[in-house]
Amino acid sequence: MSLPTQTKQFLLAAHPKAEVNPSEQFKLVTNPIPDLKDNQVLLKVRYLSNDPAQRGWISYHPAPERLYVPPVQIGEVMRAGAICTVLKSTSSKFKEGDSVVATAGWTEYAVLPADQCTPLKQVEGLSETHYLGALGLTGMTAFYGLSVVRASKDDDLIVVSGAAGATGSLVVQIAKHLIGVKKVVGLAGNDSKCRWVESIGADKCINYKDKDWRKQLKEATQGNVDVYFDNVGAPILDAVMARMKTHGRIAACGAVANYNAGEGAEPVRNWFEVISSRLEIRGFIVFDGAANFGEYTSRLVEGWKAGKVQISDEGETVIPTSFESIPQTWLKLFAGANQGKLVTKLT
Amino acid sequence: MSLPTQTKQFLLAAHPKAEVNPSEQFKLVTNPIPDLKDNQVLLKVRYLSNDPAQRGWISYHPAPERLYVPPVQIGEVMRAGAICTVLKSTSSKFKEGDSVVATAGWTEYAVLPADQCTPLKQVEGLSETHYLGALGLTGMTAFYGLSVVRASKDDDLIVVSGAAGATGSLVVQIAKHLIGVKKVVGLAGNDSKCRWVESIGADKCINYKDKDWRKQLKEATQGNVDVYFDNVGAPILDAVMARMKTHGRIAACGAVANYNAGEGAEPVRNWFEVISSRLEIRGFIVFDGAANFGEYTSRLVEGWKAGKVQISDEGETVIPTSFESIPQTWLKLFAGANQGKLVTKLT
Repeated sequence: MSLPTQTKQFLLAAHPKAEVNPSEQFKLVTNPIPDLKDNQVLLKVRYLSNDPAQRGWISYHPAPERLYVPPVQIGEVMRAGAICTVLKSTSSKFKEGDSVVATAGWTEYAVLPADQCTPLKQVEGLSETHYLGALGLTGMTAFYGLSVVRASKDDDLIVVSGAAGATGSLVVQIAKHLIGVKKVVGLAGNDSKCRWVESIGADKCINYKDKDWRKQLKEATQGNVDVYFDNVGAPILDAVMARMKTHGRIAACGAVANYNAGEGAEPVRNWFEVISSRLEIRGFIVFDGAANFGEYTSRLVEGWKAGKVQISDEGETVIPTSFESIPQTWLKLFAGANQGKLVTKLT
Repeated sequence: MSLPTQTKQFLLAAHPKAEVNPSEQFKLVTNPIPDLKDNQVLLKVRYLSNDPAQRGWISYHPAPERLYVPPVQIGEVMRAGAICTVLKSTSSKFKEGDSVVATAGWTEYAVLPADQCTPLKQVEGLSETHYLGALGLTGMTAFYGLSVVRASKDDDLIVVSGAAGATGSLVVQIAKHLIGVKKVVGLAGNDSKCRWVESIGADKCINYKDKDWRKQLKEATQGNVDVYFDNVGAPILDAVMARMKTHGRIAACGAVANYNAGEGAEPVRNWFEVISSRLEIRGFIVFDGAANFGEYTSRLVEGWKAGKVQISDEGETVIPTSFESIPQTWLKLFAGANQGKLVTKLT
């Protein structure tokens, strides 16, 4: 097979302030592929990870120095995690045909230093796409977030928002099946998602689009909440704050409901609860937990082998996508179209 | 001296939803004083404590069971801490003429169980009114709040809002002189207060009514903030959130700026900072720290004797007040009229 000499790429053309309009914010170009230097690999991108965090990486930020990772600059390839095949290698670490996980971005082919690639050690019976989800940063986020707020089997009740999403659905399973929390309540955006969240371990999942969801939340949280794993921000955050136990703990993971809202983002109105219920709130970033990723992965694989944790096709939404349609598949994240991890399969 | 047989009292007449209007919310009545049962004391109220928390105790709450103390009910005496003289006692714990601290409320005379009164052990050279302030719950709040967020001499920078208020002015002094934090920055509402806050130990105090206060805050927080002691809530909270260090800690003590705002209370708009800077936020209530009050009081008195901590007339605003004017003096709290603790001296 002759190696490719050029690659299509999506570059960031403008920082979106609110809703993303792909034709304004992304520019499709074709660029030559550079020759390999020492210790590099030429990668063919096969799957792309779709993550709410990507929205933050391309936002307009008045103070970009305050971000936990540098933002994507105008003219750079749109950043994304990917599963790739090594086409050529000048590194002893990889050989042609190897599968790797790397932040290749929205590109057909990429040249990267070998030390920026992680070998994909496939577990028999598990689709490799799960290395973008349950066994990738998504699963690590769920595990690390629960550890930051010291979730334990002594907790009576954990609530998780975005419970049918990539991270939320793993939080449900880790909390219930691996940590042993007594009761897990999820919040998700439609009935079918809710039933799925219950099928993987939630004692109850509430559709926050129901008119009476606040009443349902109150009923499902009698005795009040030890830990809230927040994936969505206000206004659901406000509602759960009002249901916390005294000294309850909140893991602030994300605010996907507000990522596309720009200055219209929903503010937090229930701050008084932080004081009167003496809440502990902990913001966290998955990378802070890197020292534990090996342990988390082992526990997830063991839990899967023991039949406790589902790592299955139902826990991901894999969408076959032409290169030109990458942005449209990514935008499905913010429309709540996915159940579990949203993965782009390049066709 | 013959003992009084009746007492004036202010009862709560209505729960204010926003601004307090004394003629609507409080009702002045005269009631007979009951006879003493066993282990009770008859008290004459001499000084009243004025505290932002009182505003919360009388608010309309859709969910009063969520409050950290039961709210004041319609028809009950308005709750307030007080310094009182024992006029009569059926308890071996107190005798006529003793000074005590007790939650007597807005009343001339009160009959209370002896075990709800704390003997006022006056330190020579310190006015007894400080037992409502630096050596009372105010000082305990400052000390305990700093301990909840683990303020230590390893911290480079602490920011305190409401820095000229009762709690804030003690936070400044405890942080700088007793804990040994390297730099303390205050926020207060006028230039004269700011100069006083600097005189008691702040390296810098910013007038948040200055047009360029955000710029001043940015300049004063180069290197970013380890600990923020929040007495006021949003929008100052938002501005300081954007200046925190990664893993910075916030002690959520109060939100005085919003206590009278009802549904117009300022929401928190900078939640994204909680995640991206991995903030730790801790709501707290002074009563949770009761086990340490003895230690805190000793350290404050020692610090005062060593000339490190000012416990002086400048740290309190004592307003001679007729019984009928108690609500008007209390309202000065929310107008920012006081420097240090606001104490009502009944005339």
